[in-house]
Amino acid sequence: MIKVGIIGATGYAGGELVRLLMQHPGAEIKWYGSRSYVDQKYADVYRNFFEIVEDKCLDDNIEKMAEEVDVIFTATPQGYLGGILTEEILSKVKVIDLSADYRIKDVATYEKWYGIEHKSPQLIEQAVYGLCEINREKIKTTRLLANPGCYTTCSILSAYPLVKEGIIDPNTIIVDAKSGTSGAGRGAKVPNLYCEVNENVKAYGVLSHRHTPEIEEQLGYAHDGKPVTIIFTPHLIPMNRGILVTAYASLAKKVTADEVRAAYNKYYAGEKFVRVLEDGVCPETKWVEGSNYVDVNFKIDERTNRVVMMGALDNVVKGAAGQAVQNMNLMFGLPEAQGLELVPMFP
Amino acid sequence: MIKVGIIGATGYAGGELVRLLMQHPGAEIKWYGSRSYVDQKYADVYRNFFEIVEDKCLDDNIEKMAEEVDVIFTATPQGYLGGILTEEILSKVKVIDLSADYRIKDVATYEKWYGIEHKSPQLIEQAVYGLCEINREKIKTTRLLANPGCYTTCSILSAYPLVKEGIIDPNTIIVDAKSGTSGAGRGAKVPNLYCEVNENVKAYGVLSHRHTPEIEEQLGYAHDGKPVTIIFTPHLIPMNRGILVTAYASLAKKVTADEVRAAYNKYYAGEKFVRVLEDGVCPETKWVEGSNYVDVNFKIDERTNRVVMMGALDNVVKGAAGQAVQNMNLMFGLPEAQGLELVPMFP
Amino acid sequence: MIKVGIIGATGYAGGELVRLLMQHPGAEIKWYGSRSYVDQKYADVYRNFFEIVEDKCLDDNIEKMAEEVDVIFTATPQGYLGGILTEEILSKVKVIDLSADYRIKDVATYEKWYGIEHKSPQLIEQAVYGLCEINREKIKTTRLLANPGCYTTCSILSAYPLVKEGIIDPNTIIVDAKSGTSGAGRGAKVPNLYCEVNENVKAYGVLSHRHTPEIEEQLGYAHDGKPVTIIFTPHLIPMNRGILVTAYASLAKKVTADEVRAAYNKYYAGEKFVRVLEDGVCPETKWVEGSNYVDVNFKIDERTNRVVMMGALDNVVKGAAGQAVQNMNLMFGLPEAQGLELVPMFP
Amino acid sequence: MIKVGIIGATGYAGGELVRLLMQHPGAEIKWYGSRSYVDQKYADVYRNFFEIVEDKCLDDNIEKMAEEVDVIFTATPQGYLGGILTEEILSKVKVIDLSADYRIKDVATYEKWYGIEHKSPQLIEQAVYGLCEINREKIKTTRLLANPGCYTTCSILSAYPLVKEGIIDPNTIIVDAKSGTSGAGRGAKVPNLYCEVNENVKAYGVLSHRHTPEIEEQLGYAHDGKPVTIIFTPHLIPMNRGILVTAYASLAKKVTADEVRAAYNKYYAGEKFVRVLEDGVCPETKWVEGSNYVDVNFKIDERTNRVVMMGALDNVVKGAAGQAVQNMNLMFGLPEAQGLELVPMFP
Repeated sequence: MIKVGIIGATGYAGGELVRLLMQHPGAEIKWYGSRSYVDQKYADVYRNFFEIVEDKCLDDNIEKMAEEVDVIFTATPQGYLGGILTEEILSKVKVIDLSADYRIKDVATYEKWYGIEHKSPQLIEQAVYGLCEINREKIKTTRLLANPGCYTTCSILSAYPLVKEGIIDPNTIIVDAKSGTSGAGRGAKVPNLYCEVNENVKAYGVLSHRHTPEIEEQLGYAHDGKPVTIIFTPHLIPMNRGILVTAYASLAKKVTADEVRAAYNKYYAGEKFVRVLEDGVCPETKWVEGSNYVDVNFKIDERTNRVVMMGALDNVVKGAAGQAVQNMNLMFGLPEAQGLELVPMFP
Repeated sequence: MIKVGIIGATGYAGGELVRLLMQHPGAEIKWYGSRSYVDQKYADVYRNFFEIVEDKCLDDNIEKMAEEVDVIFTATPQGYLGGILTEEILSKVKVIDLSADYRIKDVATYEKWYGIEHKSPQLIEQAVYGLCEINREKIKTTRLLANPGCYTTCSILSAYPLVKEGIIDPNTIIVDAKSGTSGAGRGAKVPNLYCEVNENVKAYGVLSHRHTPEIEEQLGYAHDGKPVTIIFTPHLIPMNRGILVTAYASLAKKVTADEVRAAYNKYYAGEKFVRVLEDGVCPETKWVEGSNYVDVNFKIDERTNRVVMMGALDNVVKGAAGQAVQNMNLMFGLPEAQGLELVPMFP
Repeated sequence: MIKVGIIGATGYAGGELVRLLMQHPGAEIKWYGSRSYVDQKYADVYRNFFEIVEDKCLDDNIEKMAEEVDVIFTATPQGYLGGILTEEILSKVKVIDLSADYRIKDVATYEKWYGIEHKSPQLIEQAVYGLCEINREKIKTTRLLANPGCYTTCSILSAYPLVKEGIIDPNTIIVDAKSGTSGAGRGAKVPNLYCEVNENVKAYGVLSHRHTPEIEEQLGYAHDGKPVTIIFTPHLIPMNRGILVTAYASLAKKVTADEVRAAYNKYYAGEKFVRVLEDGVCPETKWVEGSNYVDVNFKIDERTNRVVMMGALDNVVKGAAGQAVQNMNLMFGLPEAQGLELVPMFP
Repeated sequence: MIKVGIIGATGYAGGELVRLLMQHPGAEIKWYGSRSYVDQKYADVYRNFFEIVEDKCLDDNIEKMAEEVDVIFTATPQGYLGGILTEEILSKVKVIDLSADYRIKDVATYEKWYGIEHKSPQLIEQAVYGLCEINREKIKTTRLLANPGCYTTCSILSAYPLVKEGIIDPNTIIVDAKSGTSGAGRGAKVPNLYCEVNENVKAYGVLSHRHTPEIEEQLGYAHDGKPVTIIFTPHLIPMNRGILVTAYASLAKKVTADEVRAAYNKYYAGEKFVRVLEDGVCPETKWVEGSNYVDVNFKIDERTNRVVMMGALDNVVKGAAGQAVQNMNLMFGLPEAQGLELVPMFP
């Protein structure tokens, strides 16, 4: 039984980690770390866990936690883990970081987009980017796992096969993404109030959203390591969960729909959690809600020689906690889908 | 042209006052009072007013304001106006208070339910409770108007004719009310976040909500001045605007549906803003959205000798700003419906 | 492995049965019965099941189905099963009926409230009302299970201990219930369109809703078999899932909060799926979403000598498919919670 | 007083026409035309009009209507007006068509994208495309007005100045649009049910949506009459009203943000209903809800040499009924904004 500690257990991603791990046969949460709710019952913070979780919240002492658990999940603000993680901690415990601190290899890029100094750049190199479908083998052996962002998981998986196969010119990619509001976190801010989000839709972080360089770096690897520059525009949607990506790119060569489909199947046919939809079916976030699936599909536009790529996932599951558990499974040699065989909930 | 000042112009009720007064031919806002946004453009706080309101927010100096305007609307937290209002201010300006400070005649009752000390009890007596359909004549001459609460307006208007006519026993009344989230205000609190309210419904303030004594006092007046005790239970609904009241009471005498309908018509047939729906039609909040209407109807239960009374209004309009403007019209001798001929918006 | 057939697999309750049974280790769906989608892939009707369910929809031939499966779930319109069920079918297969056809023992009452003739009244007597927490032993041995309604499950469980213990006068009960829109089914009707339901709340079926006699009958059994008459008012809420019941009744004797709590605990302390919340905590539908839990609590009103009883459940799970699976488990001697250990999903 | 007839008065756009015209001082509805609700009270179809509209629905006899009114609004399915409109009717009455029948000059293009035969192609030439801000002068003198589509109004107004001024290459335009559900109409269809739309987002009509050629034709006029080919992708959002457009295009020349802003101001500075937002402010649909405003803004991406153009409007107002009334005002010589000085409603 894997002993688990969570730092940031009382945010939305933390809460979802608890939901998934409570249903996981091979893991056991030993430490519900929190800054704001120390000594309060965890089930008083999230009452869905009433009579399911009896533990109280503990503090977020990572050194002590490292002595007591096998793996630490950090669902914390950007910069937090970067400021406290050490080689010594990593020598005792595996770390799965849901923040962005170790996702980007180039420190300068991280510091520019995040506007903060990276306090432990020496640890970045060993971190493995935890997009399971692409980095599976490296994930199995790492002790420091950088769990991908929600938008990035959806964006990369939607475009990856076409970049990898040279079907599209990656420097023409435009990602127009739509996200439910849980992605904004549980912080008490006016723009996230019900009455501000409901009956409303808006773009935000236009041309400056921090997931941009993360998408670019990963698609760059798929593009033979050459740099990739894209446009990424996130939008806030009045719903709790779900991300939909609609991405556009110019075709780099003449292809048929069958050839494009073959490219998706080449990479995803054996992937349980990536579903390439049937011809003509557009992904909908509702069809993956509560599950670890990503649904993808595409359509070729002969009028403009472009392709429209589409992807949908649940931002709290495959976009955060679910993928983190999938990574844990890989890192500990468990069946990759263990605890994640969740059927999407509809309606 | 009536010169208007608003204290608390940047809350939801304040914003709605601005929306209504911008469309009012006889009033002009001279002072957008705020605590948090002084010197900021009002249209930067509520961007719906971009290119419509050019003014900046001013402070909330009521004494200065009293020199410059004809009427002050206060859309402020409970206790605020009670702490600053004076005879001198009232000698210079009319005041329409959207808070509860002068609604309840008995200071002890106010202090018990609100848990705060009333700092100007000597002013309570002269305040007129601004439920236009019931207190119209008194409203016309007052200088201190206590604008009714949102739940109370809907609850009282749904039950008033049947209490007044002795058709129901008012001490058996149970009001089960459902409100949209704008009633919770624009404060940044976790329970009002989108993800907490959406896809959720709950009761709150059970048996302790502050609108209870206000409903009881007003229905008491209708009950020949005898005390009335009721149950009032509010619920939070995932929508922006609207209150629906479903109220239950035992019949005090044998009546037919026609007699009950006649009672409603006796009080409301001439009332523009109270619509007694046709037989069998249940009020829906959507049918009054954005307007100053209250829709009411009823159904007699012969099995239990009770009547079900129903009412719907827009909590920000007839439940707050709209009724305040209606009161202003009465207090200044304008046509009562001026600026309020708003057709409900659907969908 | 229990072989399962579903008639009405393509409605919302049918879809939820599929979701739950796909995660159930002891059952296997052999027949996805449908009227409208025969020969279409089930996953084309509900795309959440893409790559999870490969079967096609079959017709709704109950006789043929009875030869091939161990249990038939019927998630069909009222009157449908009553018109086709026979002793012969019941001799071959167990039937769990999610419609109301066998819930009410008195045929005249059924026919009056449902407005249809009952075609197989001779089968009613043997049917067991499947409220697991109350009828567990009878459920274990029946072959015809009347699965309770969504509103009724929530209403009865909220009030049952207090009726049973003589704490309240059941003839004073008023149930004010609020339901998400999935309860209205997947039929294409204007009142269920997004724009009609969203940003709206209304009562419907006032004093005539069909769940009324079902609640009355069951509470009558708890009331020493004496008849009970209540008021039941359902409301439509802009959310997908969830029912909240707020019920009111007069106290039949002087009790303390501790005594009332003891009554709830007497019946529910050992019940996994009924959670008696802590003092002062009101049930919220969001805290049970996607799970088989019912959360209940209460508050005594000394001012009016009444008690407010509250309950919340997911109408598609504990209010329909989840309770049906719980009943199946009981009827087949499986652990009662098998396949139902679903942690509620938040947000 | 302009006498108005409406064909299709009981759809959502028809309902909004009624709302706006009831508040219009210079127009009077004489004919509420309907196919489904003949002889029923209009206020029984849309109960927001209870005690506001007393008329009953009449049939949709356009010839008779042409004798009795000054202007006919048609809010009807595609192809309907095309099949019944004649020169004779146009000789008696002005027609404002909210369908697409006369928007596209090239019949073949219309027939290809709409998949129906155009029955009155001889009338297309005289029709004026009613985008007031661009075609104002022509609108004033036409008797056949093709009212623009909701997506098209938002898309064109967002990009028009930059195309007209040669700042962007119009053949690189990608329009990613998000719409509330009222745009789908009031037809009873499963995909528009509350539970299907709520908590969900999806693209639809990918690369085949009928508003594509309409946008292309109008932007072609701005592009010196040269053909323009774009990508247009609509998405369905869980909200009632509002369209948000996020459009992308390559810059055709080196420009500063100030120069781009100057281009917007050149065309919109004097336009009441187009608000060019301040630098850095992204349009939100909520800020225009219920009003005739379009909010636009842009951001230059130096990394990719592209510009992101954004626009928001209320699809039922500026995207349909509001623009139709604005056109009516122009066609009858009334002040253009009469009856349209609606302050957006928030929240």
